[in-house]
Amino acid sequence: MRFTSEQRLDDGVLEREFTLGEIPGILWTPGSASASAPAPLILLGHPGGLHKMYPRLVARARHSAAEGFAAATIELPGSGDRPRSAAADEARADLHRALEAGKPVDDEIAARLILPLVEKSVPEWRAALDAFLALPEIGGPVGYAGGVIGIGIRLAVVEPRISAALLFAGSYLPRSMVEEARQVTIPLHVLLQWDDEGNDRQLALDLFDAFGSEEKTLQANMGGHTGVPRFAGDNGNRFFARHLK
Amino acid sequence: MRFTSEQRLDDGVLEREFTLGEIPGILWTPGSASASAPAPLILLGHPGGLHKMYPRLVARARHSAAEGFAAATIELPGSGDRPRSAAADEARADLHRALEAGKPVDDEIAARLILPLVEKSVPEWRAALDAFLALPEIGGPVGYAGGVIGIGIRLAVVEPRISAALLFAGSYLPRSMVEEARQVTIPLHVLLQWDDEGNDRQLALDLFDAFGSEEKTLQANMGGHTGVPRFAGDNGNRFFARHLK
Repeated sequence: MRFTSEQRLDDGVLEREFTLGEIPGILWTPGSASASAPAPLILLGHPGGLHKMYPRLVARARHSAAEGFAAATIELPGSGDRPRSAAADEARADLHRALEAGKPVDDEIAARLILPLVEKSVPEWRAALDAFLALPEIGGPVGYAGGVIGIGIRLAVVEPRISAALLFAGSYLPRSMVEEARQVTIPLHVLLQWDDEGNDRQLALDLFDAFGSEEKTLQANMGGHTGVPRFAGDNGNRFFARHLK
Repeated sequence: MRFTSEQRLDDGVLEREFTLGEIPGILWTPGSASASAPAPLILLGHPGGLHKMYPRLVARARHSAAEGFAAATIELPGSGDRPRSAAADEARADLHRALEAGKPVDDEIAARLILPLVEKSVPEWRAALDAFLALPEIGGPVGYAGGVIGIGIRLAVVEPRISAALLFAGSYLPRSMVEEARQVTIPLHVLLQWDDEGNDRQLALDLFDAFGSEEKTLQANMGGHTGVPRFAGDNGNRFFARHLK
């Protein structure tokens, strides 16, 4: 991991951009991190495109830092400045055609869109986790928060260093990954925007039901796809405070 | 309203039993209430039987008092020391027969069980609210928290002094009241025990969808019918803190 820039935000959070091989990413550590014990870490998932997502990511990172958590994210394959994938672009075009025609997004499109992304990005997140945990200012435990929900599910299944996950149910997901969710056993906090018309609500409810975790909470709110209320973020922070401290 | 007993709990909460006509009830006020501004009030709903429910009610009242809320409850018609109703007893017997036979509780039984209870108890809750708000130590705004969910729905529709409600989706409810829920517009926090086998989960989800409120949150947790986790109660307190303060 090579740091390429560093700035101190006004609330004392240290923001560092880095590259890990070809993959760009951002690491945020609380102002108090170097002085005190190593901080627990929250991996911030997102739908791809670090520049576009930056305002929302930095807001979530600052919210987490206020509770003493470090936060980090990496670019997804095929997004932002990373090389595009012809197959992924084609799946995305088919998705948009279906949406414009007012058709439901069928399982075959969701599978072409999500499965290769999960296959490629999950090893990258795990390699990034190796690098984050090698830093003296980062300790464990580790949580995963955000989309792409398929990435969160796969990470929760294969990565034993992830202790808890906050997932957004509402992005596209092939049915095969609902089955995979039965293998998840870590504590989960699942957010669902109830009135998001682009979202398959029944799939989200089936997914929540499938998770094998003994502690799982589904919190459904109003406000559309990007209108997750502030108090839902606060509840998410408290979820991590219970499980990562 | 006539107070019949008074005791100071070890956390300073003042617990007073009262009767309102024939109806027994309990009022809890925070230790700081008389010294400071009138406290907002949370009406504590329950399935009937104040003596049996006391441990859970007093725990919820203390939890609320710690946030500066007064709390109060009254006995339901046909429960505890109040005169029984032959029709209600018959409906309850039919319910138990259905449960013992492993049959689903049909809408006709739910209607016989719940509708007369709602018709009779809602005016009693409103009369009790008149009496509570006449006390100098109780101010507004007012919230309703708990079961019977049919009572909570009807109160939210007809009683303009109730500003927010925390409802447990998971008790019996006739389908006609799902329609009535469309008229509810106050902020709602709805708790659902996801793995409660005695609970009609689809009915609970349909009910949540029906509520007309712009702000409504569904929080589903594991732990069976009576296993609502402690953090869910904390989230409920914060819901009331947002809306009653």
